[in-house]
Amino acid sequence: MADTTSKGLADVIAASTALSDIDGRAGLLFYRGYDIHQLAGAATFEEIAYLLQRGHPPSRAELAGYAEEIAAGRALGPLVTDCLPDVAARQSPMEAMRSLVSLASAGDPDAGSNSAEANIGKAARLTAQQPVLVAAYHAAREGGKVSPAEPGLGLAANFLLQLRGAPPAPREAEIFDTCLVLHADHTMNASTFAARVCAATLSDMHSAVVAAIGTLKGPLHGGANEQVMRTLVDIRTAAPDDPVGAVEREVRDRLARGEKIMGFGHRVYKTEDPRATHLRQMSGELAAAAGDDTYYRMSRRMEEIVLAEKGLYPNVDFFAATVYHYLQIPADLFTPVFSVSRMAGWTAHVMEQHADNRLIRPDSEYTGEHGLTWTPLDER
Amino acid sequence: MADTTSKGLADVIAASTALSDIDGRAGLLFYRGYDIHQLAGAATFEEIAYLLQRGHPPSRAELAGYAEEIAAGRALGPLVTDCLPDVAARQSPMEAMRSLVSLASAGDPDAGSNSAEANIGKAARLTAQQPVLVAAYHAAREGGKVSPAEPGLGLAANFLLQLRGAPPAPREAEIFDTCLVLHADHTMNASTFAARVCAATLSDMHSAVVAAIGTLKGPLHGGANEQVMRTLVDIRTAAPDDPVGAVEREVRDRLARGEKIMGFGHRVYKTEDPRATHLRQMSGELAAAAGDDTYYRMSRRMEEIVLAEKGLYPNVDFFAATVYHYLQIPADLFTPVFSVSRMAGWTAHVMEQHADNRLIRPDSEYTGEHGLTWTPLDER
Repeated sequence: MADTTSKGLADVIAASTALSDIDGRAGLLFYRGYDIHQLAGAATFEEIAYLLQRGHPPSRAELAGYAEEIAAGRALGPLVTDCLPDVAARQSPMEAMRSLVSLASAGDPDAGSNSAEANIGKAARLTAQQPVLVAAYHAAREGGKVSPAEPGLGLAANFLLQLRGAPPAPREAEIFDTCLVLHADHTMNASTFAARVCAATLSDMHSAVVAAIGTLKGPLHGGANEQVMRTLVDIRTAAPDDPVGAVEREVRDRLARGEKIMGFGHRVYKTEDPRATHLRQMSGELAAAAGDDTYYRMSRRMEEIVLAEKGLYPNVDFFAATVYHYLQIPADLFTPVFSVSRMAGWTAHVMEQHADNRLIRPDSEYTGEHGLTWTPLDER
Repeated sequence: MADTTSKGLADVIAASTALSDIDGRAGLLFYRGYDIHQLAGAATFEEIAYLLQRGHPPSRAELAGYAEEIAAGRALGPLVTDCLPDVAARQSPMEAMRSLVSLASAGDPDAGSNSAEANIGKAARLTAQQPVLVAAYHAAREGGKVSPAEPGLGLAANFLLQLRGAPPAPREAEIFDTCLVLHADHTMNASTFAARVCAATLSDMHSAVVAAIGTLKGPLHGGANEQVMRTLVDIRTAAPDDPVGAVEREVRDRLARGEKIMGFGHRVYKTEDPRATHLRQMSGELAAAAGDDTYYRMSRRMEEIVLAEKGLYPNVDFFAATVYHYLQIPADLFTPVFSVSRMAGWTAHVMEQHADNRLIRPDSEYTGEHGLTWTPLDER
C-alpha cells in the first residue's frame, strides 16, 4: 500500500472504539450509544464509569459492588503516601499527577498483568484513586492532611469533601457529579490516543494513563478552563465596578487584534458542544445560589459577543471554569479535575486496545540530509 | 478529505523527521545522513547525542562544552534522591524509570519551558541523568548507594562504573559506548511516536519522555533482549554439558510448534539489521575476552538455524543480549539501558515536534451501538 501523509493524523482513523461517538454537525455526544443529554443529571459518574469500563449500565447490585470497589480502591499505597508531601512541595499539579499515578502502580496488586480481569480491577482502582490524589496533593501543598472519605458518599461528593475539608451541599455534589459525567470520554482526543499508543505495545494500564496525563498537561489539550477563569478574574479585578462592560471591551479588543479567545470553538463540533449546554445551566444555578453571579454574567456576555462576532460556540471548557470556581476548586486544579473524570474513559480505552491489539507504529517521512561522511573529531 | 482507515497506522506518515532514516531493503540506518556503519566504533555516544539534539557533529570545543553539561546535569534533584530508595524497593525497573523521570522534572530549572533554548538544556540533562537513574536504582535495590561518577570518564564508562562499582576496562567502555550509539534513534518507533503525540499538545519534554518510557515498557516494543538472554540462560542451565546442541534442539522444537523466536526479524529490515552486524562482532570479542564464549556460540548456532529455517535475520536485540551479559549488566536492566541510549533520540524528536508543531489527533471509527435509551437505576 502506498504511504498516506497526514501531518497531525487529521482524517486518519487510527483505531475503532465502541466507547463514545460524536455527531459534530448535530452537536451530539454518545457514550456506548446513550446520548449525553439523557445521561447528564440522570446518571451518576459511577454508573458512567461502569458503563464505559464494563460495557453496560450496572444493575443495582452491580453498582453496589462497583461502589465497594471504589471505596476499597481509594487507599493510596505506601509509595504514594511516602512521596506525596515531597511531590506536593516540588511539583506543579499536573507534574504531580503524572508522578503520583506512576508511583501508584507499586500499590496495585495487578500492576503487572494485562489480563481482562486484572484490567477491570485496575480501572476501578485508578478511577477511585484519582480524586483522592488531587485532594491529597492539595492538602499536602497546604501543609495538611487530606480529610478521610465518607463511606456513605459517592465519588463526586467525596472529592469535594476531601478537597474542601467539609461535606458539600447535596446539590453541589450532584452538579459536580454531572460535570464528571460530561467529561468522562470524548473519542480519540490526544491524551486518549497517547494512552492507546502506549497500551498497544502491551504496556500496562498505569503506563498508559501516565502517558495520557502527560499529554493532557499540554496547553493545546488541557488547561483551557483554567485560562478562562484567569481571564475572568483578571478582567473583574481590573474593573470591579463594571466587570460585564469590561469583558465586552476586552473581548472586542482581543478579536480586533486577531487573538484567540479561550473556551470557544472545537475541532469537531460545528454547533454548540452538547456538554456546554449543561455546564451553562449549572453555572447559572451555582451563581444564583452563591449570591454573586458576576462571573456567570461576564461569561454570558463573552459568549454573546464571540458568537455574534466570530460565529464560535463555547466549548466544554468555557462554563466548566465558572462551575468549578463556584464549587471552590482552585483554578490550578481544573486540569487535574479533568483527569478525575477522564480516567473512566482512558482506562476503558486501554481495555479496548488490549482486547483487540495491534501495535500503533506509523511511518515518518525523512526530510534531512543524505550521504554525509563522518569526519573524525580530530579533523573537525 | 475522506477518512483513511489504518489500524496500527502502518503506511501512514504521521510526522516528518530529519533525525534518522532507514533503508530497510538495503539494511541501512542513518543518523542525520550519516551511515551507522561509519559511526559505530568511530563516534562516541556524546557526539551522537549532540548530533541528534543539536543538528551537526560537535567541534572539539562544542563537545567539551557538552561534556561539561553532561557532568553538571548528572546530579539527581532532591525529589528523586528522596524517593529513590522507596521506588527501588517497590517498583520494577521500568516502572521505576517512569516514576523517576517524572519526579526528575522537579529538579530541572527549565521544566516548565518549551523554548528551544530550554529544550536544548533539558535534553542534555535528561541524557546525563538516565544512566545515573539506572545505576542508582540498581544500587538502591541492592541496599547500597551508587558510586560517584568520575569526571574524566565519558557517559558509557561512567555508567559501567556506577552500575558495577568499579571502573570498567577501557575496551569494555568503548564497546558499551558503541552500543549506546547503535540504539540512539530509530525513526518513528512506538515510544518515539508516543513522545511526539505527547509533545504535540505542547506538553513538556519530561512528560513526553515519561510517555515514551511507559510505551517502551510494553513487550511488543522493549524487553526482547532480556527475553533472549533468559532463553539462553535457561537452555544452558538445563543442558550444561552440551548447550550448543541443546539450543539447536530447542529452536527446532519451537519452530516446529510455530512459536516465535525472540530477537529475530524486523518490521522494517528485509535483510540484516545493520546494528546487529556490530553487536555480533562485539559479542564475539567480549566472549573471547571473558574466556567463556558459550553464550556467543549458542547465539551463533541459533542464528544459523533461524536463518536457514525461517529466512529471518537477527535484529538489534539478539546480540545486544550477550553483549550486555558479558558487560555484567543484569538482564532486568536491559530495557532501562535501552532508555539510556534512546533518550538521545526521544529528546531530539520532542525538539523537532515543538519546532514545527501540530496537534496529533487521529480519528476513530465508532463500532458500538446507536440510539439506546437510558433507563433509570430504579427500573433496571
